[in-house]
Amino acid sequence: MKSQTKYMTFETTERRKLIRITDEVQAAVDEAGIAEGMVLVSAMHITAGVWVNDDEPGLHEDVMEWLDKIAPPSWSAPANDVAEELLPEGGDYRHHRGGEDNGDAHLKNLLVHHQAIVPVTDGKLDLGPWQQVFYCEFDGRRPKRLVIKAIGD
Amino acid sequence: MKSQTKYMTFETTERRKLIRITDEVQAAVDEAGIAEGMVLVSAMHITAGVWVNDDEPGLHEDVMEWLDKIAPPSWSAPANDVAEELLPEGGDYRHHRGGEDNGDAHLKNLLVHHQAIVPVTDGKLDLGPWQQVFYCEFDGRRPKRLVIKAIGD
Amino acid sequence: MKSQTKYMTFETTERRKLIRITDEVQAAVDEAGIAEGMVLVSAMHITAGVWVNDDEPGLHEDVMEWLDKIAPPSWSAPANDVAEELLPEGGDYRHHRGGEDNGDAHLKNLLVHHQAIVPVTDGKLDLGPWQQVFYCEFDGRRPKRLVIKAIGD
Repeated sequence: MKSQTKYMTFETTERRKLIRITDEVQAAVDEAGIAEGMVLVSAMHITAGVWVNDDEPGLHEDVMEWLDKIAPPSWSAPANDVAEELLPEGGDYRHHRGGEDNGDAHLKNLLVHHQAIVPVTDGKLDLGPWQQVFYCEFDGRRPKRLVIKAIGD
Repeated sequence: MKSQTKYMTFETTERRKLIRITDEVQAAVDEAGIAEGMVLVSAMHITAGVWVNDDEPGLHEDVMEWLDKIAPPSWSAPANDVAEELLPEGGDYRHHRGGEDNGDAHLKNLLVHHQAIVPVTDGKLDLGPWQQVFYCEFDGRRPKRLVIKAIGD
Repeated sequence: MKSQTKYMTFETTERRKLIRITDEVQAAVDEAGIAEGMVLVSAMHITAGVWVNDDEPGLHEDVMEWLDKIAPPSWSAPANDVAEELLPEGGDYRHHRGGEDNGDAHLKNLLVHHQAIVPVTDGKLDLGPWQQVFYCEFDGRRPKRLVIKAIGD
């Protein structure tokens, strides 16, 4: 069994940002010389996600608006009544008692998941025509790491 | 290391549908002759999911009603006030500007995840007594593919 | 390829409980003698989850409050208007017609996912500094199983 481990570091200037990393994941598979296997793409932080979806800017805005309603930040005014009710009783996260302000990023991490696995067939990421791999930063402006681990033959 | 790749194509007559595929996943493991390993079951579309849960029709209706509230379609009237507020400001997805109407299916895909991994032990899917694998179509009526990738020894 | 399968059984006295299992997952990797590979941690029940997040008690309370709003139980009064609207029409889950009362636990299982994969590098779980693996019981007070499956070399 071959294996390959690669780390990426992101330091976004924006607090939240989606970054397409399909090519970097394929490069890790190429470097490993793996023809058949799987590659795990996993955020090493608890305030970021990894997902496989469409690279369509309108959809990305839709998703961010939606995530801010169902996993609302407390560092900005609630988007609407639903967001306000989904905040903790009292209006702020208990997690913020230690000085943090990223409680919503933890919830978003749980909601969209922090990792995805891509099958590798004939040396290529075995993705559908519209599937792209994204790193989803929910609390950036500092260095954040991601691990790509490929195993196979 | 052995590996086995199998594709399934679904073309549902309904827009949304849950299809149990546990037996097909086991068959892929059998064909590969894998005794110890893992099998990845992954939708190749960004508007479908894969989950492991109960094969109980009441639960399936519950889940679909719930998903339509928290990731609401815009091709039908909102289920209630919460669904209305969880739609984008203005009432429709930006993603629909290109002529699509499946924005909700993308959100559902992110929410329930598009893939699951099943451990394989002694040649069998190592599932709990109530765990069944489902393909979850959220935008059907056209051919949609799924990949099953088993690796192991 | 080496592989190692380990089962854990939880029987919580509380209905819901988060249990950190990072050390047990590392122990399974140690027992297998795996230096490079992956370890799957997967609940064998459809009313429990597995997640990788912060071991911070305030956050855990936040997450449970939030999950009870977006995937509301019907065995207690709704937390607020949003929770009430996210319950099925009529106020109770169809799944409960057979005598169950854990419909919300099924939804929580789908939402936070029932499994996570941890990469293994140089024999260690390749986690970020704040990442801990948790078993998330949503319907306890009876024996529930989890499978840990490590593969690699």
